[in-house]
Amino acid sequence: MEQQDPETTPVRTIRVELGARAYDILIGPGLIGTAGLEIALRLKGRRMAIVSDENVAPLYLAPLVESLTAQGIEATPVILPAGEKTKSFEHLVPVVESIIGARIERNDAVIALGGGVIGDLAGFAAGIVRRGSRFIQIPTSLLAQVDSSVGGKTGINSPQGKNLVGVFHQPDLVLADTAALDSLTPREFRAGYAEVAKYGLIDRPEFFAWLEAHWREIFSGGEARIEAIAASCAAKAEVVVADERENGRRALLNLGHTFGHALEAATQYDSARLVHGEGVSIGMVLAHRFSARMNLAGIEEAERVERHLRAVGLPTRIAEIPGPALSAERLMEAIAQDKKVKSGQLTFILTHGIGRAFIADDVPGSEVLSFLTEQLRAGDAPGA
Amino acid sequence: MEQQDPETTPVRTIRVELGARAYDILIGPGLIGTAGLEIALRLKGRRMAIVSDENVAPLYLAPLVESLTAQGIEATPVILPAGEKTKSFEHLVPVVESIIGARIERNDAVIALGGGVIGDLAGFAAGIVRRGSRFIQIPTSLLAQVDSSVGGKTGINSPQGKNLVGVFHQPDLVLADTAALDSLTPREFRAGYAEVAKYGLIDRPEFFAWLEAHWREIFSGGEARIEAIAASCAAKAEVVVADERENGRRALLNLGHTFGHALEAATQYDSARLVHGEGVSIGMVLAHRFSARMNLAGIEEAERVERHLRAVGLPTRIAEIPGPALSAERLMEAIAQDKKVKSGQLTFILTHGIGRAFIADDVPGSEVLSFLTEQLRAGDAPGA
Repeated sequence: MEQQDPETTPVRTIRVELGARAYDILIGPGLIGTAGLEIALRLKGRRMAIVSDENVAPLYLAPLVESLTAQGIEATPVILPAGEKTKSFEHLVPVVESIIGARIERNDAVIALGGGVIGDLAGFAAGIVRRGSRFIQIPTSLLAQVDSSVGGKTGINSPQGKNLVGVFHQPDLVLADTAALDSLTPREFRAGYAEVAKYGLIDRPEFFAWLEAHWREIFSGGEARIEAIAASCAAKAEVVVADERENGRRALLNLGHTFGHALEAATQYDSARLVHGEGVSIGMVLAHRFSARMNLAGIEEAERVERHLRAVGLPTRIAEIPGPALSAERLMEAIAQDKKVKSGQLTFILTHGIGRAFIADDVPGSEVLSFLTEQLRAGDAPGA
Repeated sequence: MEQQDPETTPVRTIRVELGARAYDILIGPGLIGTAGLEIALRLKGRRMAIVSDENVAPLYLAPLVESLTAQGIEATPVILPAGEKTKSFEHLVPVVESIIGARIERNDAVIALGGGVIGDLAGFAAGIVRRGSRFIQIPTSLLAQVDSSVGGKTGINSPQGKNLVGVFHQPDLVLADTAALDSLTPREFRAGYAEVAKYGLIDRPEFFAWLEAHWREIFSGGEARIEAIAASCAAKAEVVVADERENGRRALLNLGHTFGHALEAATQYDSARLVHGEGVSIGMVLAHRFSARMNLAGIEEAERVERHLRAVGLPTRIAEIPGPALSAERLMEAIAQDKKVKSGQLTFILTHGIGRAFIADDVPGSEVLSFLTEQLRAGDAPGA
């Protein structure tokens, strides 16, 4: 793996221009070690609660606390079990009480140190303590760095579904330490990469072409990786600035997610079978294939998408999911329960081709069901 | 009591001009019976969850449901125990799950039918279901009609203090049915009146003079009552529009509240001893007396405030609170724990006289302590 030298690799800065709530995303190796300085430059508070999990804390909590202490910032760690089950009221309530107990006031902050689960939970807690406390994201997974840490969506799951409870609460600062990605497993890295590719597929065809040419460098960890993360954050920031609360265009970020969520639900969120980014990978291929079936785009576009995702090692077909076979009916049921259902009508992100995604809010359920039945009947094998 | 005829008494409308989140406050007798119509005129949703409590539901749930059903709106009631203890995570979680279970989607709404506790809890639940659902306030107490239902502050209490957890979430509509006030006890009505008087004391000296002249008509329930409620809502709306998230001027609404909260905390929120509005009444007199002591205003201003609040039957002295005597030290402790403490400094709303309140963020704790000691030593008796 190519080594990055924190002394010479420049830190990229993406500004999210949200008026009075504008904030910086810094991207580069070694940012956990310089977090105290970056925070002290921007926030007046001298008390921070650090929310992390049992996997991430042993790796990065000590250097983060040290870097805060060096700036005179008092840090209170709140460590949770790792995993999706932590995104629940059961864990939210003690986190909220720990933050209040740490006497976090208006100028102080809550720091999320971890992946998407920790960012979503800690952001929600920050959003409701004293009707909104300052919040800093230090994402340690690729998925969190390019997607969930940017844009202010926070929340937990309810027994009825994922992310059904939460608030929009923008961070005051995002520190994406790219050196932290070296501790990810290849499977975790690939899952995050699905969201990177998504930005190309939505509206940046030239970025998708660049990914096709440079993905090996991104996976090996050099400058191209930082470049890809910065481009992803910039793409997401642009959408968030245009439509912070998802009244319109922001829904494009759900490309591949309606099918993806249905696959996650149908496999009971069992990460041994499927993780979010893998569901999105299969979902994006399905969205392109479904668009081709509806005569919205050529089938060669779907094939090109599939070729690239397969090249990086992501699953692209439902049949690749290990375990009991899934039925089209079970998937349709999960789609109907998805939160993006509007007055009974199905809303999908479809596409006219790579980089030409759009919001379709009148997709007939019957078409989706026959498409899924067809995909599953065809053996759903690559090249089928 | 003067009877209001819903057929002839006009409904007042106050518009809260918050841009894309602007909303109407309607004030008048009989609005619960016409709620369905008013809601159908403004919201597209056809599913509503009604959050209420065991005291209010027997009186007003049936006519509200009937009025919604007549407009084709399906209503799901969620009934909670009455009282401040309901403002907790313990009750919030099942309310959130009931709202999700009632399949409340983006265009549907959560309705709060009750006093301040129900409005704060239901508003918080609406604010976090699907990261913000539509919300309608139908306040049934005077306090809720003139204060808590307007302005978007929602929340629950934590073991460490009141209202420490919540969000800013503006309603889409407020229906203040003034006929509902006829079911309040005189003590409840008086407690709400303290907040009405507050608007005069903050920056409307002519309104305070009008209250001195007309309070008997307001208590007896005629046109003057509607007028006073409308003027209070207009005063609050103006402050909220200028400073929605309390970064500045909105703090003026806390006039009398720092002392008031301390009194509530020191009496363990025991409503047999003190309710919120009574604490605010005593607190407003203390704020005026303290301002006089600091040579900010003449003592005759404090005496005039006290005379009026005493005339309507509100307590104005600490010694009037039944039960064990309170100490200045216990009150100071409660003040220090109050959420309005900023970096150890005491923030108070002080005044240059009636209608001339201002934010003082550098009040020395030692001055407050000797003031309270003095007030308690002087026997704290009226005219002392």
